Amino acid sequence: MSNRKVLRMGLIGAGRIGKIHAHNIASRIPQAKIAAIADVNLKAAQQLAGELHVSNVYEDYRKIMGDPDIDAVAILTSTDTHADLIIAAAAAGKHIFCEKPIDLTLERVDKAIAAVHKAGVKCQIGFNRRFDPSFTRLYQLIKSGKIGKLQILRITNREPAPPPVSFVKTSGGMFLDMTIHDFDMAGYLSDSDVVEVYAIGGVMVDPAIGKAGDIDTAIITLKFANGAIGTIDNSRKAVYGYDQRVEVFGSGGMATIANNPANAATYSNAKGVLTDKPSYFFLERFAEAYTAEMSEFVKAVLANRPTLFTAAESRKPVVIAMAANKSLRENRPVRIKEIK
Amino acid sequence: MSNRKVLRMGLIGAGRIGKIHAHNIASRIPQAKIAAIADVNLKAAQQLAGELHVSNVYEDYRKIMGDPDIDAVAILTSTDTHADLIIAAAAAGKHIFCEKPIDLTLERVDKAIAAVHKAGVKCQIGFNRRFDPSFTRLYQLIKSGKIGKLQILRITNREPAPPPVSFVKTSGGMFLDMTIHDFDMAGYLSDSDVVEVYAIGGVMVDPAIGKAGDIDTAIITLKFANGAIGTIDNSRKAVYGYDQRVEVFGSGGMATIANNPANAATYSNAKGVLTDKPSYFFLERFAEAYTAEMSEFVKAVLANRPTLFTAAESRKPVVIAMAANKSLRENRPVRIKEIK
Amino acid sequence: MSNRKVLRMGLIGAGRIGKIHAHNIASRIPQAKIAAIADVNLKAAQQLAGELHVSNVYEDYRKIMGDPDIDAVAILTSTDTHADLIIAAAAAGKHIFCEKPIDLTLERVDKAIAAVHKAGVKCQIGFNRRFDPSFTRLYQLIKSGKIGKLQILRITNREPAPPPVSFVKTSGGMFLDMTIHDFDMAGYLSDSDVVEVYAIGGVMVDPAIGKAGDIDTAIITLKFANGAIGTIDNSRKAVYGYDQRVEVFGSGGMATIANNPANAATYSNAKGVLTDKPSYFFLERFAEAYTAEMSEFVKAVLANRPTLFTAAESRKPVVIAMAANKSLRENRPVRIKEIK
Amino acid sequence: MSNRKVLRMGLIGAGRIGKIHAHNIASRIPQAKIAAIADVNLKAAQQLAGELHVSNVYEDYRKIMGDPDIDAVAILTSTDTHADLIIAAAAAGKHIFCEKPIDLTLERVDKAIAAVHKAGVKCQIGFNRRFDPSFTRLYQLIKSGKIGKLQILRITNREPAPPPVSFVKTSGGMFLDMTIHDFDMAGYLSDSDVVEVYAIGGVMVDPAIGKAGDIDTAIITLKFANGAIGTIDNSRKAVYGYDQRVEVFGSGGMATIANNPANAATYSNAKGVLTDKPSYFFLERFAEAYTAEMSEFVKAVLANRPTLFTAAESRKPVVIAMAANKSLRENRPVRIKEIK
Repeated sequence: MSNRKVLRMGLIGAGRIGKIHAHNIASRIPQAKIAAIADVNLKAAQQLAGELHVSNVYEDYRKIMGDPDIDAVAILTSTDTHADLIIAAAAAGKHIFCEKPIDLTLERVDKAIAAVHKAGVKCQIGFNRRFDPSFTRLYQLIKSGKIGKLQILRITNREPAPPPVSFVKTSGGMFLDMTIHDFDMAGYLSDSDVVEVYAIGGVMVDPAIGKAGDIDTAIITLKFANGAIGTIDNSRKAVYGYDQRVEVFGSGGMATIANNPANAATYSNAKGVLTDKPSYFFLERFAEAYTAEMSEFVKAVLANRPTLFTAAESRKPVVIAMAANKSLRENRPVRIKEIK
Repeated sequence: MSNRKVLRMGLIGAGRIGKIHAHNIASRIPQAKIAAIADVNLKAAQQLAGELHVSNVYEDYRKIMGDPDIDAVAILTSTDTHADLIIAAAAAGKHIFCEKPIDLTLERVDKAIAAVHKAGVKCQIGFNRRFDPSFTRLYQLIKSGKIGKLQILRITNREPAPPPVSFVKTSGGMFLDMTIHDFDMAGYLSDSDVVEVYAIGGVMVDPAIGKAGDIDTAIITLKFANGAIGTIDNSRKAVYGYDQRVEVFGSGGMATIANNPANAATYSNAKGVLTDKPSYFFLERFAEAYTAEMSEFVKAVLANRPTLFTAAESRKPVVIAMAANKSLRENRPVRIKEIK
Repeated sequence: MSNRKVLRMGLIGAGRIGKIHAHNIASRIPQAKIAAIADVNLKAAQQLAGELHVSNVYEDYRKIMGDPDIDAVAILTSTDTHADLIIAAAAAGKHIFCEKPIDLTLERVDKAIAAVHKAGVKCQIGFNRRFDPSFTRLYQLIKSGKIGKLQILRITNREPAPPPVSFVKTSGGMFLDMTIHDFDMAGYLSDSDVVEVYAIGGVMVDPAIGKAGDIDTAIITLKFANGAIGTIDNSRKAVYGYDQRVEVFGSGGMATIANNPANAATYSNAKGVLTDKPSYFFLERFAEAYTAEMSEFVKAVLANRPTLFTAAESRKPVVIAMAANKSLRENRPVRIKEIK
Repeated sequence: MSNRKVLRMGLIGAGRIGKIHAHNIASRIPQAKIAAIADVNLKAAQQLAGELHVSNVYEDYRKIMGDPDIDAVAILTSTDTHADLIIAAAAAGKHIFCEKPIDLTLERVDKAIAAVHKAGVKCQIGFNRRFDPSFTRLYQLIKSGKIGKLQILRITNREPAPPPVSFVKTSGGMFLDMTIHDFDMAGYLSDSDVVEVYAIGGVMVDPAIGKAGDIDTAIITLKFANGAIGTIDNSRKAVYGYDQRVEVFGSGGMATIANNPANAATYSNAKGVLTDKPSYFFLERFAEAYTAEMSEFVKAVLANRPTLFTAAESRKPVVIAMAANKSLRENRPVRIKEIK
């Protein structure tokens, strides 16, 4: 592969997120080419392949792993298959892009990371926020020293509508499915490690979520190794739409991310001044980020440099989520190192 | 007066604007003291004097002019009396603060200015925008060179409700009553002179205003001596409230003034994000400016330095307003020097 | 007093906050009259009285308590004198406006409240945020039902500069001096009671504050009796100025308060779009609120109706602050009822 | 074609704008298929075709006109070829999407429109603003009646950098190249016709533009048939980036479009609060609009309904631009009907 200028990719998973990545690669990432698409639902794979003029379509992902002309795979399947597919791809010597999270258990996360390390392949996990223009700008402000020493971090993450209860049951719970993005951001933006969490929360949106053993509303406080403190708040239902805000406050200043209104129009009358709600949900809000993260993966592999987000890094937010779950159950602050 | 540390002022006019200035002087300008209040409506003068512990109250303003202990007068009466009162005050050697405009005819404006010059007293005309914190900040941005060379000036001035027709009939028309503030700002912010205007407009708000011979909606374009160009738009009725915005655009950047919402609360729901309307009208919007302009007058007199806005300067916006009226009537661009 | 139309007030304390209230009463609250001013620093009292044409000036506040012509007192002295002055005023049958907080110990708070109740006088404690136009608008949005059922409350309270260490030592600590406003707001806006708090924080701004036994940065999480949850963050030093934001999130929508920029000007150039910082500190930010709270007190007394904020209510934020201190010390959530 | 579900399109022009439309059609408009690409620069056509898996590539556009399997053409070439290509396409019975403007002379514009009408094909001209989410939202607000009767229209259109002088010489001048978008918007948003214009302006950005006989800065005032008035301001160089704002003001309220900052991050420090500049230029700002306008064209043709913007409509802004040029030369208001 060393001399290739275009990365040949095999896509595993032709569902909603699979389609998005596939279209992004085909139309917006000239350095990559989709060489094959696989899905246990062969029809879905065939339809997507047809749209994108991809000739190799498989039901069995192992065809992709076995194709020596494929440099890298994108694992875009359901979470419970991620670890096994990473291990298989690593064994086949493929570089790996995998949707978050690797797994809901640390044991399997660690096995996947070990396989990646052993194989010496690159593996990037899809935490989209790291590639959003606004989050990127925030990160640059921090890195430039303009915030000074970080003191307080605040994240708001609220979704426009709760997921179906069926999803809740297999998702690992709100902290592992949704707040995990915020736990990742906490580490990323603080340039430090969370050392203790305290979580409160409850069922305020949908009693069925409670019956499924999960919560839908929470506040989590964080202590960082560098002395900073933080707070995250989550809701599964904000009637005004997808609410994604971050604030970092330090000795030198504050940087924030506000919501993007869906358009730039305002209406003023005797009642006040009205602007539109934010873009609907993650597919709209992070549309650019999905392209940017895949583009970064492709460029990193082609240039043989580290990806911006590695499998090993992706372990941390999983551990924090587990600590938050423990804190919620026991109503006490939980040290991260309590989680093994 | 030269050794005084407190300016002794006589107030002429105890109506709406008189009360505002009187309370501002009494409670917020420690360098001034109200020595006397006069109003043809003696009862109004007495009531205001009672509120403010002022013992000298007169029906006849000449008592103020004749009091050697009074250093300065504030002329807060109706426009048609301004010129005569300025002339009388100048003759009496009093420094003068007078509400805008001096008069609706150039002849009388010039007589008043001549009297001020002859007497060597200070005379400041009350153009409140020059003392508003936002306009002041805009002016500083311009003066600091951050805008570079001015290219385009834009002013929006819209009122929340049209004046009564009785007022329209004696006001001199919209350009002399309302747009005059914008004409003043145009000269002030451009640091240049308007040399040509073109005005279009009509009656869109209230047919009674049309019957009284005036318009209620207009757009005026301006050419400046320094080559810049500008546009002003006016309406006598904005349903969302008092709309005061300015924009200066130049080779180095742009500075704007937005409206101040009446409060900083927002409300977000499924319909969008709502903020409150701007503060109601000029008394609310320019409350601080009324204090600041009087404070500046008092300090300038005490320090024996020029006031920030002189009677002579106040002639210019009157002339521009006359040119705008001529342009509107004749539907052609009018040079300022056509107005004699 | 029942037939009076103007409330005759005695002011105790002629320091910084005393001057503000005195000027507000004199110039902006026509229903009240300052009948006397007392201060242990007689000179300060005399100077203030001189500015405001008040003839009765005392070193000893008991002269005010003993004056049958005085209807109400405003206690504007240092915190350690509040409880005794409230008790003395209640004994003298005076209605009471007192700056927050009543005291730093519950025992003395309770004694003061008992004295007020026994005497049957009105007593309003000066929590200024309840009278700010933005907070008021937020409260109206909540009361109107537009937020629906409250789920998450967020308060940011950051000051532009830390207090001198001498003040820190006698203030009772950040939670009792500064966060107490947020604890009050939490109860006020939630229309419920805080039942549990968890506080984290540390010394990030000024080591001298740490040496004095206090912290300068904190995050507090709250559980409410009605099931809602909340988070407060505090800093003693925000380089961009006084930061006062609130957010209430519920089933029907979200209401927020943003900071007021000091003016409405923006500047755009190749680096971006710049607006000014918020108003400097509480005296500027809550200038209107200081007038509004006193006006409300005066009107409530004259109309013989309850004040909007009573002495009894002012006990709650003190208790929450104590619980927060305990939580910080013990690093565990603390139930409010643990505080006796 | 009547039974087709996918529109087969021939693209003429593989330059900058050609590539954008080609990629949009290929990846984001499933109802269309690129059947052929032609460009006098065959290499450019071949490269674009290669990227998009298009097999028919021509140097001569007539191959497209002659292909009975092609339903519609997109004319994405330089302005001076538009009229001839429209006439050829109409003669061949192809539906037509053509970049703005049809031509710089009314004679040729009229010939092209006549050809379209005679052939009975659909023809949409590419005025991108009509398909931008913010402009669309503004239009909906107007159409819903929320603005009431239109009184004042304001458009700001400023570009981040002036075009090369070579372009200026063939562009027809700023009014025909750049302001033409604003003239179109004026008619579109007012739901009326411009009946008179007055233009002022000059060379403030680049003397070379002046030498080429054009201006780079202007203000134009508009009178509409329905009585409303309007103002447009233009600059070829705003240092803070592409500035696209619109405001419609009427008896019922005001609607505005603000600039979209490039991201939603802000930075606050002791100097103020900084947000980023708007997106760079039209390709970024109107990226969505380019897809939306082509999608609308495709859907209109497939559904056999009128396109949202017809060739006939595209004549109006050309005429207004000519009137503005005449007004600028003669320094007087010019009636639209003076332009023949």
